[in-house]
Amino acid sequence: MSSENTLDDEDTFKILIATDVHLGYLEKDAIRCNDSYNTLNEILKCAKTNQVDFILLGGDLFHENKPSRRCLHSCITMLRQYCMGDSPIRFNILSDQTVNFNTTQFPWVNYQDENLNISIPVFSIHGNHDDPTGAEGLCALDLLSASGLVNHFGHSHSVERIEISPILLQKGSTKLALYGLGSIPDERLYRMFVNNQVTMLRPKEDQDKWFNLFTIHQNRSKHGPTNYIPEQFLDDFLDLVVWGHEHECLIAPTRNEQQLFYVTQPGSSVATSLSPGEATKKHIGLLRVKGRKMNLHKIPLKTVRQFFIQDVVLGDYQDLFTPDTPHATKKVEEFCYAKVDYSGGFETFNTSRFSQRFVDRVANPKDIIHFLRRREQKEDIKDEVNVDYGKLIKTAAVEGLRVEDLVKQYFEAAEQKVQLSLLTEQGMGKAIQEFVDKDEKDAIEELITYQLEKTQRHLQARGVTTEQDIDAEVLFRDSKKNTTEEENEIREAMNRARAHRLERGDNALDADILDELAEPMDSDEGSVPFPAPTRGRGRGSRGRGGRGRGRGEDCKLMFSKFIEECRCDTRQ
Amino acid sequence: MSSENTLDDEDTFKILIATDVHLGYLEKDAIRCNDSYNTLNEILKCAKTNQVDFILLGGDLFHENKPSRRCLHSCITMLRQYCMGDSPIRFNILSDQTVNFNTTQFPWVNYQDENLNISIPVFSIHGNHDDPTGAEGLCALDLLSASGLVNHFGHSHSVERIEISPILLQKGSTKLALYGLGSIPDERLYRMFVNNQVTMLRPKEDQDKWFNLFTIHQNRSKHGPTNYIPEQFLDDFLDLVVWGHEHECLIAPTRNEQQLFYVTQPGSSVATSLSPGEATKKHIGLLRVKGRKMNLHKIPLKTVRQFFIQDVVLGDYQDLFTPDTPHATKKVEEFCYAKVDYSGGFETFNTSRFSQRFVDRVANPKDIIHFLRRREQKEDIKDEVNVDYGKLIKTAAVEGLRVEDLVKQYFEAAEQKVQLSLLTEQGMGKAIQEFVDKDEKDAIEELITYQLEKTQRHLQARGVTTEQDIDAEVLFRDSKKNTTEEENEIREAMNRARAHRLERGDNALDADILDELAEPMDSDEGSVPFPAPTRGRGRGSRGRGGRGRGRGEDCKLMFSKFIEECRCDTRQ
Repeated sequence: MSSENTLDDEDTFKILIATDVHLGYLEKDAIRCNDSYNTLNEILKCAKTNQVDFILLGGDLFHENKPSRRCLHSCITMLRQYCMGDSPIRFNILSDQTVNFNTTQFPWVNYQDENLNISIPVFSIHGNHDDPTGAEGLCALDLLSASGLVNHFGHSHSVERIEISPILLQKGSTKLALYGLGSIPDERLYRMFVNNQVTMLRPKEDQDKWFNLFTIHQNRSKHGPTNYIPEQFLDDFLDLVVWGHEHECLIAPTRNEQQLFYVTQPGSSVATSLSPGEATKKHIGLLRVKGRKMNLHKIPLKTVRQFFIQDVVLGDYQDLFTPDTPHATKKVEEFCYAKVDYSGGFETFNTSRFSQRFVDRVANPKDIIHFLRRREQKEDIKDEVNVDYGKLIKTAAVEGLRVEDLVKQYFEAAEQKVQLSLLTEQGMGKAIQEFVDKDEKDAIEELITYQLEKTQRHLQARGVTTEQDIDAEVLFRDSKKNTTEEENEIREAMNRARAHRLERGDNALDADILDELAEPMDSDEGSVPFPAPTRGRGRGSRGRGGRGRGRGEDCKLMFSKFIEECRCDTRQ
Repeated sequence: MSSENTLDDEDTFKILIATDVHLGYLEKDAIRCNDSYNTLNEILKCAKTNQVDFILLGGDLFHENKPSRRCLHSCITMLRQYCMGDSPIRFNILSDQTVNFNTTQFPWVNYQDENLNISIPVFSIHGNHDDPTGAEGLCALDLLSASGLVNHFGHSHSVERIEISPILLQKGSTKLALYGLGSIPDERLYRMFVNNQVTMLRPKEDQDKWFNLFTIHQNRSKHGPTNYIPEQFLDDFLDLVVWGHEHECLIAPTRNEQQLFYVTQPGSSVATSLSPGEATKKHIGLLRVKGRKMNLHKIPLKTVRQFFIQDVVLGDYQDLFTPDTPHATKKVEEFCYAKVDYSGGFETFNTSRFSQRFVDRVANPKDIIHFLRRREQKEDIKDEVNVDYGKLIKTAAVEGLRVEDLVKQYFEAAEQKVQLSLLTEQGMGKAIQEFVDKDEKDAIEELITYQLEKTQRHLQARGVTTEQDIDAEVLFRDSKKNTTEEENEIREAMNRARAHRLERGDNALDADILDELAEPMDSDEGSVPFPAPTRGRGRGSRGRGGRGRGRGEDCKLMFSKFIEECRCDTRQ
């Protein structure tokens, strides 16, 4: 710490960055009920200890759109405990605050409210879990902003076009433009980027003096053709992007070589899914910005319950048992109990009995073990030239491809005429529009059913039968455009995002820094959506059935385990 | 106003009293959606305009136990708008605030919090609508108290015994002891009073210098033998009781001649039921306390939608039509439309067609008209000596007596042996206990069914058949005690409540008032539970079938109407 403190001076912004706190997650669980609360407490305490200028949250402060009373009460209490007090605020806001804070009747930063004594301002965008709903477009954060405890920003009220107007902050000689965009359904935002409906405003003067920090809460990993936001869509005048929503902690900034900005993905402060990305150590960040230089120091979270995950391939232990070994199941169970392992054409054993043995030692006995059985040998879809529909369908089901990928491939191979007849089917346009507008679960399901039936009927007409009950999302295509046109639009969107660099002719490397930059973390070997130095696939393991690729085993199982005892700072 | 201001000085507490704001009531109604919000705004504005020392709310600030986001957001916003600011607070708190404000981690009055700039402290008990629930025992008010916007007091955490510790306030030479008790199921609280489990603590010194103000949120009108709180249960050292929960505005203080204290019943600030009590003009009160003297000035609420109610007896218009008149129904409808009226063996007409005519003129077209048909001639039960069970059951059904009354009468007449066999029935005690403990709807229904079946079986064994589907509540009796013992206990509870007057030997008339005491309001002619000068039955019309007594008509109908246009101050 002492060496870091030498970095601090009157020109250096000191910002605590965290995201996806998911307050209230599993709050009814007998063991883990306090986890999310303990960690928010740790984060706020850390901010106070480090005397940061402000806290920046990347969305999903709350796990539920309508947090429980306990959840709101705890949050309010902690914010009042840690973020109110006499420490002076050492930065100013230069922008029009009525534009920045447009969700309350108090459109000014909380620390400038003469009736509130704020020591640590919190700036937060909303996430997909705590997004605005209802006729008033209010989200849970707005209760906090009405109370003066949080500064909710980055809420776009228009679905037609998004103008992101930065909060312009100045501390000493450092100018920080803080951009934010609360969660929007990925497909809609993707489309808006492509259609040139997203604009990031910039101060007219001294453009090259500003450090441009953007907070976003979207899919970073590619969950489908348009179900994520490519980094290349983001303007290249940015210096650092704080990427929320993705739960894997990849907090060490990675450089996007096209846009020449950095991206930090702090990851959630609580593990909410049993995926490898959640098993890595959780961190928050202490970001320092001085002039155009930055330094990100990662701080491990102590209260996060450690989660272990391990794939075990039973086929690797043929010396111990094969599917034909007498009492193989029992032996496998014993083996798993002793060492943690399993796989290869074996019968599954009773997991709840198995779990019983861990009741006193792990926090998630019920889901400690998962059986995964590969249906079929993997084949590389990318090599397909002449589409074999039957194979395509099967492969998709096995590999967990979305129907949108599937249908896209189908259209790319099918004749133009068939394509049009599919897409102009009465009611289809309306249903898609409803989905786009409302992102409503019912509409999705309805549409999926509708589309699956249509698609399957077409495929069946060509002798294809689907064997799998495919869980899927939906196709987004404009029936008037062909693939080339669409690709051109995407390319244009990316070019627009790079325009600023060409304009200003400078090199974003200025924003680099370097002493004490946090070490890059280990990442899994995921595919990267664009040839950029982003790290791993983030929450890619959310996809269905695609785990353990390349091993080719028939059956494997996954161990997931939370420690039962959790190091917790007791809340005051 | 000018004459009143002469009353104000540095020794005079100026308190705005209001209750049952029911924020969020009908917030989804197309016409009345903003009513409750407009009125809270008016109340807070009124408090600010009158520069009161504090606001005292008698419970049910929220209509829903879990208020909507809009509701919480509006409430927080209005409180922050009106109750924060630079006006100095001119009174002190002398009591132990950790005892007074025991529901937050900030156990001190909000205006003494160094991080909040409060101009008007709000003190509130909770009501039955916004009562504490869940493992944490939190209520919606606690979100406001955690935010520092409201001082929630009077929350008893024990179900074993209640100690009401006053907030001791001093302004100049005036000492005000503010007692509060948040809503508790009436039967339980009644029983606790009888069992001497309720204690109101008093400061040891200068007892006769304190003005003792008590806020309570319970049934004041008798809804059953133990389903209300008799004023006589309340300690006679009190000077004024602010009675919440009852919606009828009976704000002019009435004197209880036994206890020699005054009771003011401000009534709700929004009409939530179509009863005569809700049709009277709504008011809030400006209470001044100087030494042991008080003055209550009633302030009419301007934003409350006026509600009209009228009983129309068709039998009074035999010159126009009788049930035998050709096209009587049509004529009655026309008559009603023209003048508002109806009754006496007539057929009912189509009310929704009727209502259509008022769509543009009233706010509640759907329930503008109610047909009521008396089943039978009333008879006076009190004269019964030899119980005729059949008659008793019938009368009860007609008169809307509760089964508890009925069973009580039955027991009073029946032999001791039968009584015991009924009450010691297996499971009965447990069910009653559950009801007492949880006040849970399911438990009640279960118990009612159980008890009704038992009772009816006993009655039927004596040749009685019940013709009515009786909607009822439940008997509370200790099977070990006979009626005389119970009556003695109640008498003792009342004697205890009067003990202080005997002790101190003074006369509570000191607390009397003076100039400009609000005029008593008109009240309906209800029965009074005790020979006390209380006014009317409050929400007595909530009872079933008891309306319009003494008229003896066969059929009548009730008109209820809210004005459609509402004078509203637009919220800022």
